[in-house]
Amino acid sequence: MTEIVCLSADFDLKTAFEDAFAEALPAHPLRRPDEIADPASVRVAFAHAPPDNAFDPYPDLALVCSWGAGVDRLVDHPGLRPETTLCRMVDPGQADMMAAFAAHYVTGWHRGMFRYPAQQAERRWELVNWTANAEVPVGLLGFGNMGAATGRALRALGYPVAAWAGRARHEDGVEVLAGEDGLFRLLGQSRVVVACLPLTPATDGILNARTLGAMRDDALLVQLGRGRHLVEEDLIPALDAGRPAAAALDVFRTEPLPSDHPFWADPRIMITPHAASSSTDLAVAQAVGRAIADLEAGRSPAGAVDRTRGY
Amino acid sequence: MTEIVCLSADFDLKTAFEDAFAEALPAHPLRRPDEIADPASVRVAFAHAPPDNAFDPYPDLALVCSWGAGVDRLVDHPGLRPETTLCRMVDPGQADMMAAFAAHYVTGWHRGMFRYPAQQAERRWELVNWTANAEVPVGLLGFGNMGAATGRALRALGYPVAAWAGRARHEDGVEVLAGEDGLFRLLGQSRVVVACLPLTPATDGILNARTLGAMRDDALLVQLGRGRHLVEEDLIPALDAGRPAAAALDVFRTEPLPSDHPFWADPRIMITPHAASSSTDLAVAQAVGRAIADLEAGRSPAGAVDRTRGY
Repeated sequence: MTEIVCLSADFDLKTAFEDAFAEALPAHPLRRPDEIADPASVRVAFAHAPPDNAFDPYPDLALVCSWGAGVDRLVDHPGLRPETTLCRMVDPGQADMMAAFAAHYVTGWHRGMFRYPAQQAERRWELVNWTANAEVPVGLLGFGNMGAATGRALRALGYPVAAWAGRARHEDGVEVLAGEDGLFRLLGQSRVVVACLPLTPATDGILNARTLGAMRDDALLVQLGRGRHLVEEDLIPALDAGRPAAAALDVFRTEPLPSDHPFWADPRIMITPHAASSSTDLAVAQAVGRAIADLEAGRSPAGAVDRTRGY
Repeated sequence: MTEIVCLSADFDLKTAFEDAFAEALPAHPLRRPDEIADPASVRVAFAHAPPDNAFDPYPDLALVCSWGAGVDRLVDHPGLRPETTLCRMVDPGQADMMAAFAAHYVTGWHRGMFRYPAQQAERRWELVNWTANAEVPVGLLGFGNMGAATGRALRALGYPVAAWAGRARHEDGVEVLAGEDGLFRLLGQSRVVVACLPLTPATDGILNARTLGAMRDDALLVQLGRGRHLVEEDLIPALDAGRPAAAALDVFRTEPLPSDHPFWADPRIMITPHAASSSTDLAVAQAVGRAIADLEAGRSPAGAVDRTRGY
């Protein structure tokens, strides 16, 4: 496992990451496909949205490392052979960034912080909210690496946290609900719903007229997962109907969000440009190095994807 | 210790709190001074900014419970006898509220969240910041109940936290600096400085031209302590000189902040109306009950004030 081939339809991974890989993994140079002399010798790929035929030249590919936590564009890739290990690059700092982003909205919504700038513009001294944190239940849709870090941070702030994920359990002091009943229970009880789900067939379009309408009329939806989780045309009618009260959206079906999209001008919608979290280049390169070492030692790499579950 | 006398020059404590005390402490009814038949029998007072002669009628006062965490207006009270225990009502939920308020500004400043609303208004899709939390040092001025809760929450989010207080120590994984050298080291290293100090002669005016000018040019000052910590006329010149970059102020020398005050219109200053934290009425009544029980059992009550230190 020496050369690492970079496979992406839409991004020059080699140029973006070669400094970080040179620092973290000098024995494993990044190569573009046209720089590979012997494709049969290539065991490792570094990938982001690769084209359908991207894997075909490499019969002995053992490991595909996905840049980015969302592997939805790789898990069903028609050219990825079953015996190849697919691995997302887990950067603990990335989960902290997601948690901080979510905490900003939870604290802001709870304490009315998004209303104070308008009051300041009017020189108006008026308290919005003094509810105790313990009275503001937060629901996390998704309880993987990102959700768990968000839950830990919110619990450290004294917020009651519940979660919804594929499997019911108690973890880190958080009750994790599952199934449709669990989903609607979580939506109905939470002042803030933070969505940080993986995109799978089961979660595609999960934020829709029916689920939005099950939220509280004083709730904020914070959508930090994937654009396809939200049925976008259902959101403004749901806000018009009063549930949820507002939404903070970081991901969209089309990014950048088209300038004529109705979300931009809706005062109940806060927009950020897919800013919630990102791994650093060096952390990605280090994670690729750990995955190679794990595979060489016969261990399952951290961040290995269960391709039957889809995440 | 049966009746509790309410002492305040500026606030009708009895009306505000009698429901909460009736629920939490039915054996200890709240009374106004004119409702006390036998002042010599009164052992407990519940006080907020009492007038200078407020304590004079009660020769056997054993315990004064201060509403609010700031006891600066009680610690030097001329009528408070040395043998009387002064106690602030500690509500753990109040520290969580302060921590959440601080976390909102730390996360917001770090991730550029205060710039996205303007970008949204222009339909502009542009990432402000993706720095890892670990690269954003936060400094806490004050490390009491409020500061420690803030530190725990920020550490749970992965931010490096240091503090400055009266006594150097390591506590809860936080390096607590002390003295003038420690103060300037903290100010010089922090991306966000959160001030949650008690007001004492040593901290009165501590945020002034010299200390503000020692902050980083990319730093946010978050002032959650007492209005008198900040020399207000020094702030705008400091911002003009570029250190700190911005300020979030929750407390002021005069509250409500007068409508002609220059802070209102400064785009680098974010104003909230003394909103960072408050105890709930019930938590205050419960804390008074615990203090009475502690004193009756011969224990020092939680929240007892060291009147020589002033907090």
